[in-house]
Amino acid sequence: MSAAPKTSPGSFFEDFAVGQDIVHATPRTVTAGDAALYQALYGSRFALQSSDEFARALGLRAAPVDDWLVFHIVFGKTVPDISLNAVANLGYAEGEWGVPVYPGDTLSATSTVIGVRENSSGRTGTVYVRTRGTNQRGEEVLSYVRWAMVHKRDAASPPPEPVVPDLAAAVAPDSIAAGHVPGFGHFDMAAAGARARWGDYAAGERIDHVDGMTVEEAEHQLATRLYQNTARVHFDQFAAKAGRFGRRLIYGGHVISLARALSFNGLEAAVRVVALNGGRHVAPLFAGETVFAWSEVLEKAELRGRPDVGLIRLRIVAAKDRPCGDHPAADAEGVILDLDTWVALPR
Amino acid sequence: MSAAPKTSPGSFFEDFAVGQDIVHATPRTVTAGDAALYQALYGSRFALQSSDEFARALGLRAAPVDDWLVFHIVFGKTVPDISLNAVANLGYAEGEWGVPVYPGDTLSATSTVIGVRENSSGRTGTVYVRTRGTNQRGEEVLSYVRWAMVHKRDAASPPPEPVVPDLAAAVAPDSIAAGHVPGFGHFDMAAAGARARWGDYAAGERIDHVDGMTVEEAEHQLATRLYQNTARVHFDQFAAKAGRFGRRLIYGGHVISLARALSFNGLEAAVRVVALNGGRHVAPLFAGETVFAWSEVLEKAELRGRPDVGLIRLRIVAAKDRPCGDHPAADAEGVILDLDTWVALPR
Amino acid sequence: MSAAPKTSPGSFFEDFAVGQDIVHATPRTVTAGDAALYQALYGSRFALQSSDEFARALGLRAAPVDDWLVFHIVFGKTVPDISLNAVANLGYAEGEWGVPVYPGDTLSATSTVIGVRENSSGRTGTVYVRTRGTNQRGEEVLSYVRWAMVHKRDAASPPPEPVVPDLAAAVAPDSIAAGHVPGFGHFDMAAAGARARWGDYAAGERIDHVDGMTVEEAEHQLATRLYQNTARVHFDQFAAKAGRFGRRLIYGGHVISLARALSFNGLEAAVRVVALNGGRHVAPLFAGETVFAWSEVLEKAELRGRPDVGLIRLRIVAAKDRPCGDHPAADAEGVILDLDTWVALPR
Repeated sequence: MSAAPKTSPGSFFEDFAVGQDIVHATPRTVTAGDAALYQALYGSRFALQSSDEFARALGLRAAPVDDWLVFHIVFGKTVPDISLNAVANLGYAEGEWGVPVYPGDTLSATSTVIGVRENSSGRTGTVYVRTRGTNQRGEEVLSYVRWAMVHKRDAASPPPEPVVPDLAAAVAPDSIAAGHVPGFGHFDMAAAGARARWGDYAAGERIDHVDGMTVEEAEHQLATRLYQNTARVHFDQFAAKAGRFGRRLIYGGHVISLARALSFNGLEAAVRVVALNGGRHVAPLFAGETVFAWSEVLEKAELRGRPDVGLIRLRIVAAKDRPCGDHPAADAEGVILDLDTWVALPR
Repeated sequence: MSAAPKTSPGSFFEDFAVGQDIVHATPRTVTAGDAALYQALYGSRFALQSSDEFARALGLRAAPVDDWLVFHIVFGKTVPDISLNAVANLGYAEGEWGVPVYPGDTLSATSTVIGVRENSSGRTGTVYVRTRGTNQRGEEVLSYVRWAMVHKRDAASPPPEPVVPDLAAAVAPDSIAAGHVPGFGHFDMAAAGARARWGDYAAGERIDHVDGMTVEEAEHQLATRLYQNTARVHFDQFAAKAGRFGRRLIYGGHVISLARALSFNGLEAAVRVVALNGGRHVAPLFAGETVFAWSEVLEKAELRGRPDVGLIRLRIVAAKDRPCGDHPAADAEGVILDLDTWVALPR
Repeated sequence: MSAAPKTSPGSFFEDFAVGQDIVHATPRTVTAGDAALYQALYGSRFALQSSDEFARALGLRAAPVDDWLVFHIVFGKTVPDISLNAVANLGYAEGEWGVPVYPGDTLSATSTVIGVRENSSGRTGTVYVRTRGTNQRGEEVLSYVRWAMVHKRDAASPPPEPVVPDLAAAVAPDSIAAGHVPGFGHFDMAAAGARARWGDYAAGERIDHVDGMTVEEAEHQLATRLYQNTARVHFDQFAAKAGRFGRRLIYGGHVISLARALSFNGLEAAVRVVALNGGRHVAPLFAGETVFAWSEVLEKAELRGRPDVGLIRLRIVAAKDRPCGDHPAADAEGVILDLDTWVALPR
């Protein structure tokens, strides 16, 4: 047949140029069904996302969907265009959630290439993109930078002029939009299962989230397909068995959501994640392994014009097959995730 | 860090006192997503919960969610406060479902301690609680008593004055609220897949439900997280492998829902469970095992003022890796559940 | 007990007579929860079913549910009456989807027996039925013929007069109702992730869909229960381990949906399946195996009165543990599905 090839091979390093804008397929209407599946996949108990009544008491029109569900859906859209040929997802920065996402909202995503740098091997390069997720009214629901190591199509192609964006070590609390945090004036601590408010946490405090959650192949596959994330390494055991690990890799975002759900035990009132300062998938997770997590209060901040809200810069560390009572460092055996976020709590 | 501990260790036997009221976190809005997951987890085919049109013909405004889904959500809320340190869930009594729960309703739960008795070992005690689940209008959707064996924090602490509540052997049919059963005047037997009405069943009749359902780890984990039931024994294989069974325990309520779904084959018209007289999880179920069930008609009753409705007191017995054509007794090898309920059928 | 048996043994070959109409239980309201589960089970990315906004731009009131989800729900209803005692599902023909199905619609199914023929062994027979699925307004959402090999109750019973219906080799494009395809005048190719329109495909063209998807037991069980398909072979490992394969069989429709989702890569604009010309489940799929697929453009056609729409007669072949870059024939090792459909694309 002389017809043009119909399947996409994904993008290679040579396909990215600084300044380039990418419109990602496929728009996705988020529903109560997605929220229920998210609940079943991670078991989160944060009251804001669990109860329409609780959300209304905070001034929202209904329970918004989980902040990380928004992240995964937006992220998933970028995979076919950005990281189908990625060796690794290297990092995140300058992430901020925007307006809440409710069942019925339709999410779309676009990315801008903000950096490219060929690696010394000459076979791969690092691509930096800023991705924006918007709802059907064009309101931003999420914006973040990520960078990934991407294969070159041809090792012999000349390297581009290197551009490495200057990224903030953390989102400045002053830049966080106060309007994206619901009103915490009528925050029902008992309903939320919470004993500690913002004032009860101290910088430097470490919290072991105690519980462990074992992951099954069916679970991470259901999750990753729910996000329309098509990265092959998560689904194809036939190819995986001949690969480096012999097994399917679990989407890193699955680990983030598990750690977030585990963190309820100790952070019950931290009902909204407002910013993603950075994060690193330290090691892969595989089915059959059990995830534990602990958190550290890196710093505390007020939210401009919002006496009802306090911010905590929270580092969440997840490990596998290793309880976290001793707060293992990022380079400790078994650690798989080191994530730096800002979360909002009632004062 | 000098900050107070943030994670809850759960309650111990010493923490319970008769008369104590407990408000459980987290309110939970039930949605069509939950109903779909429940469908996918158990495969039930009772027409009332399957079809808005069928429900409307019975005078309801839409298909209510499954009665046991309501139970599991209410039960799940009680776990962090009642049974996180439980050795075993010992029994149920005096359970009645109230107003139907529709997608969009928000469920909350409270419990009252109605009994405490230290066990002879001195290391555990039995706690009796009456739990009430309500919707966002404060209407009762479920009320039941359960008792669990809970660890003492300190074996040396003195035993409390023993109080053992006087519980009914079965809910009296006369006490069942007639208004909680939809109108069976226009019950479409063909649509329901039903051949037998109330009058076709005889006290003493035994029904083998024939089919078997094998349970996977991913399935019971999805279910138990959907119910926000956080009991660690269901999720943490890392801890389980060093434990008594070497495996994750499956939430007993998962078995109830499987048995209920299997019971469609032979009880197609029994579309509403109205009361829980008692129940015992005879033995644990593990992933990879196959559940079978049979039922016995213990007695029949009319429902006050409702010539369209008949009640059957139904004992459902579930077994694992053992078909139930011979109606095994509760102490037979392989039996895992012995449950006593009232169900409503059209006359 | 003298009461009549309450469980259905399913129908046997002797129970079918040409002209017989069968009303299937249980009506089923399709919801956003079903659509989310379908998404999580297969990972499809066709824009029409993913986005309310995309669907509205094509003149629909919301995103319809997947065409194959409609098929599976209608098919599931027929199982207890038609194929509970089936040896095999042999084929499909003359399938056409009707009005779109939206969350909130309630589906029912009826079948008419259009053929019976005893097999030479005398122990089984082939039953042909035309099944119609309708929504709550009685509008047809799907109509198709299938035939299955069904056990006789008694090998000694006399054979019926053989009637074999005259079935079309393929649905004639002229007979396809133009009104069932949404308006493709404002088809956003970028949002759909599509590069190729109808005109870009050539008869004879073959497309390898590249990606592989490994199936887990929990996944196909969740799917098949979601469809209220009760065929025992999919759920009962206790019985299966003594059977021919030693394992649970995966519902053939699960393979169809996997192949359809995989076919997005190369057929992004083929957002609606309009007809099922035929299909054969060549070999069974088991958990742990990985599904691949390729497609062939058998022919192209216009749609009467619709200059915005083009039809492609598409053969989709799925194989297991075998990538399809070489377009394996239906009798090649590893092939499990050979399906013949008409799909609609924008011109």
